[in-house]
Amino acid sequence: MTRLQIALDGDLTAARAILENIQDVIDVIEIGTPLIYREGMHGVRGIRDSYPNLDVLADLKIMDAGKEEAQIAFDAGADIVTVMGITHDATIQGAVASAREYRGKVMVDMMLVDNLVERGEQLLKMGCDILCLHTAYDVQSSTESPYHDLKVLREHFPSAKLAIAGGVTYDRLDHILPYQPDVVIVGGSITRADNPKQAAKQIYERIHANDN
Amino acid sequence: MTRLQIALDGDLTAARAILENIQDVIDVIEIGTPLIYREGMHGVRGIRDSYPNLDVLADLKIMDAGKEEAQIAFDAGADIVTVMGITHDATIQGAVASAREYRGKVMVDMMLVDNLVERGEQLLKMGCDILCLHTAYDVQSSTESPYHDLKVLREHFPSAKLAIAGGVTYDRLDHILPYQPDVVIVGGSITRADNPKQAAKQIYERIHANDN
Repeated sequence: MTRLQIALDGDLTAARAILENIQDVIDVIEIGTPLIYREGMHGVRGIRDSYPNLDVLADLKIMDAGKEEAQIAFDAGADIVTVMGITHDATIQGAVASAREYRGKVMVDMMLVDNLVERGEQLLKMGCDILCLHTAYDVQSSTESPYHDLKVLREHFPSAKLAIAGGVTYDRLDHILPYQPDVVIVGGSITRADNPKQAAKQIYERIHANDN
Repeated sequence: MTRLQIALDGDLTAARAILENIQDVIDVIEIGTPLIYREGMHGVRGIRDSYPNLDVLADLKIMDAGKEEAQIAFDAGADIVTVMGITHDATIQGAVASAREYRGKVMVDMMLVDNLVERGEQLLKMGCDILCLHTAYDVQSSTESPYHDLKVLREHFPSAKLAIAGGVTYDRLDHILPYQPDVVIVGGSITRADNPKQAAKQIYERIHANDN
């Protein structure tokens, strides 16, 4: 079953207003990196407490001190933290160790990883829970679609949990859903929509159309 | 002239206690990544206001949304933000654009950069202010010393501003200072010393021994 993750950036007031509006049509709340930079774990903790039935992901993009930094997010109530796939194995392993301790999960941001399949295999062996194909915000206008990469990873890892992020829209779901990602991450096409609730509902219902 | 930057991690209360103690023997205050994760810009703003005469660096380790994320730190009063050297040029350029707007500076964390000289040249051309050779916390016990890299960068870029971070101690200054870094970044060997003030003073005086 695929889940819809909403990536919240901007400031906390705006993020909370959108969340309140769309809470019934999302599965995972992502506290985005800019929001973490602004509010730290105060934002994670507050949203965690307000929405006990939704999973909360803290998009830390950990590069170093994997165990210690992942722990900061899990201590604040996050269910999932992100680590950069290009960073040192020791950092990835630290984050995974922290996740096991807290019964949390590690999502790996595959941004800038060249050898997707080889690195993907290493990451899965290290115990990472989800591999996320992420087209960076700063290169979305100049990058080929990441759907080919999703296909490649799915073919190599038939049962792995995959995610996709960066420029995802309703129209692009047709290129994404056949590869059965665990998570589809949507930001601006919901948060900057004229009607965020309607935009989220449309995507949510399409994602869950084939659930049993 | 070389400057001493103190990297503050841990929680805000501990960081403030150490700062109060060592403020006279440091040049730059680094709000470390874990501290930013915990407190967000509240930590940067508070420390900025308490120490108007010291430079404040926000160790964001920016990977994406360079302009927007750097702006968050400059808005909070940071003088310098960090960006990862391995990330997309568009992200680096965004952070530099933000720095020029705020009259701030961009320090590039060279962690995981393989082609140091080639990438260093690109980064300097893009307008980055300081290149920081950074031995990751998670690999300090297994990594060769980064002093050779400092020598290489200094030979190629005689007038560039360089910094060094990761496992720096008083005893290692002899291997560092001959290459005239702009900034020496020290964390644990001050913050976890039995007497942080004495440890900082000793390093500060050694660094500034040859100032005019």
